[in-house]
Amino acid sequence: MNEKWNSLMKSMEKESLTALLITDPKHVYYLTGFACDPHERFLGLVITQHEEPALIVPSLDGDKAASTSSVKRIATHTDTDNPYDVLKQHLPHGLPLLGIEKNHMSLQRFETLDHAVQAQRYADAGPILQSMRLIKSEEELAQMKEAVNLIEDVLRQCVSQVKTGMTEIEVVAELEYLMKKLGSDGPSFSTMVLAGENAALPHGIPGTRKIQEGELLLFDLGVYLNGYASDITRTFAVGEVNATCKEIYDTVLAANETAIAAVKPGVTFGSLDRTARQVITEKGYGQYFTHRLGHGLGIDVHEYPSIHSQNDDLLQSGMTFTIEPGIYVPQVAGVRIEDDVAVTETGVTVLTSYPKELTVIGV
Amino acid sequence: MNEKWNSLMKSMEKESLTALLITDPKHVYYLTGFACDPHERFLGLVITQHEEPALIVPSLDGDKAASTSSVKRIATHTDTDNPYDVLKQHLPHGLPLLGIEKNHMSLQRFETLDHAVQAQRYADAGPILQSMRLIKSEEELAQMKEAVNLIEDVLRQCVSQVKTGMTEIEVVAELEYLMKKLGSDGPSFSTMVLAGENAALPHGIPGTRKIQEGELLLFDLGVYLNGYASDITRTFAVGEVNATCKEIYDTVLAANETAIAAVKPGVTFGSLDRTARQVITEKGYGQYFTHRLGHGLGIDVHEYPSIHSQNDDLLQSGMTFTIEPGIYVPQVAGVRIEDDVAVTETGVTVLTSYPKELTVIGV
Repeated sequence: MNEKWNSLMKSMEKESLTALLITDPKHVYYLTGFACDPHERFLGLVITQHEEPALIVPSLDGDKAASTSSVKRIATHTDTDNPYDVLKQHLPHGLPLLGIEKNHMSLQRFETLDHAVQAQRYADAGPILQSMRLIKSEEELAQMKEAVNLIEDVLRQCVSQVKTGMTEIEVVAELEYLMKKLGSDGPSFSTMVLAGENAALPHGIPGTRKIQEGELLLFDLGVYLNGYASDITRTFAVGEVNATCKEIYDTVLAANETAIAAVKPGVTFGSLDRTARQVITEKGYGQYFTHRLGHGLGIDVHEYPSIHSQNDDLLQSGMTFTIEPGIYVPQVAGVRIEDDVAVTETGVTVLTSYPKELTVIGV
Repeated sequence: MNEKWNSLMKSMEKESLTALLITDPKHVYYLTGFACDPHERFLGLVITQHEEPALIVPSLDGDKAASTSSVKRIATHTDTDNPYDVLKQHLPHGLPLLGIEKNHMSLQRFETLDHAVQAQRYADAGPILQSMRLIKSEEELAQMKEAVNLIEDVLRQCVSQVKTGMTEIEVVAELEYLMKKLGSDGPSFSTMVLAGENAALPHGIPGTRKIQEGELLLFDLGVYLNGYASDITRTFAVGEVNATCKEIYDTVLAANETAIAAVKPGVTFGSLDRTARQVITEKGYGQYFTHRLGHGLGIDVHEYPSIHSQNDDLLQSGMTFTIEPGIYVPQVAGVRIEDDVAVTETGVTVLTSYPKELTVIGV
């Protein structure tokens, strides 16, 4: 907490922000540990340079805020209060420069806020939070590792039950049941189980197609746990698969491992994408790797950075993202292998540990 | 379509709006029939008083827009285009008054828009769309009825499989599997299956608690189908339940039926809530009916109106909402019975038809 707070105060000073009003519930959670879905109600974290921060929450959530938030100055409002009256008690009128999250705040809410607090100017505080979130603390990495461990347990337990004749959506139902049973906060995105040629569609959706012997079966799934997301993809062989499937699988695996081996501070995201892409292109499948190599992972399941060939930003220690090359040959097969990685001072820690050799299941 | 369009043009004229820019994907769907999740990309429907409307969509969605939208003037933008350059070709520079959805548009997007089109003033078009959506057309009612029929099939098929010893989350998994199998677009909210004293918690969450003989089992579930939501609650007896459970059940059922019988144009939402509440209060359970009677239902699973005792707005033909009285006695039992209704010229059509007499299941 202190480390985050110090970094935030430094950024505020640098940007000459007299005060910050944080209203994105994910950022409130990130800074205070208090998780809240306020729906249409007002939630705000007020941070000024010289006073203790204050959290303004719907009265329904007051007890939870008091028991979970690191910010201890808490003001509540009921459905018949005007929350901006409460806000005005914590934000001085006519501030020179107030930081707000312009990407999160609706124009309607901004107009109400401006009317209430009448700051002289408003700055976008979104980039400050985005750049803080980019570098994960040890505590955050530990939370992400727990979310990864949970989804790998889910995958392991489900895979042992998969049999030919089951439909894709039956397997999805079993996975989502296990996610709940093992204690996650829920899927971090729409769970994907795609069989055979369905896995080769760029936007395949699990359906009532039955799993058959001799085809590949792709699983892409993740959970939220304590506010952090995991995201893993593995592709299995249902019984014996043909040589083409094996070659595609081996190529994707080589691309995945080559990219992971290249992760270290100072290389660009673009070079990482190109490294994986080259392995696939050399085998003649370049045109079938139709998406970016990966995406940032943390409080959001898709967050900054984007790992694509045009991104010249540099990897830094503490960044976390996915590496997920894939090959999708229409009517033939689709394979993707996705790991979650964290950049270290000298290289990489791979958070996912589910085996990657081609495994036969279901028969 | 024509009816909606005429109503929209009339509202624009009344509010002196030279043009409208609709960016909420639900409103784009409502007006054009084109369903789209643009994520961070730009989606906009431009409506002017004298020109043909234009739809600006990400190029990925161009084909779908062309085949499903009633608006046939479609412009696309790729990830390397500036969508505001495309927008400028359809919105004249410096318009006197441009209508936008202030509740949906972020301040960041508004600043970019304002820089690009420089309207002299901006008005909030949200209320125009809200009031249009409030009164459903015959076509919309037919779509809602399909979403209701589907969720009732799901409930029927699942209930026949429930046995004592199953856990709440196992039943949720089965329900959500059936929702997919029967062709819905997915749950319209977090599916609830709550057994015994768990159903008496105001914010009960399905868990690994096993269903036991002699207790009540509450199901609250809904789906989206073709963009419209359903939402139903039924409470069942697992084997024989005691006299208190039966009395609570009968009281909730009487409140549900009394409120439904009172639905007709010209009464207030407040009186509807009070009608149901009085039935429950007279039986001595008033303090245990801890929420409003219901909520509007349509493109959103919770939309305007809110059916609570302080709402003095009048029911009008074509409005659709839920009626869902409940009694929650801590440590004892929770019962809720929820129907979806539409106001007609002379009274009410109940969209839900699942039986409401207390039914024994699971043994």
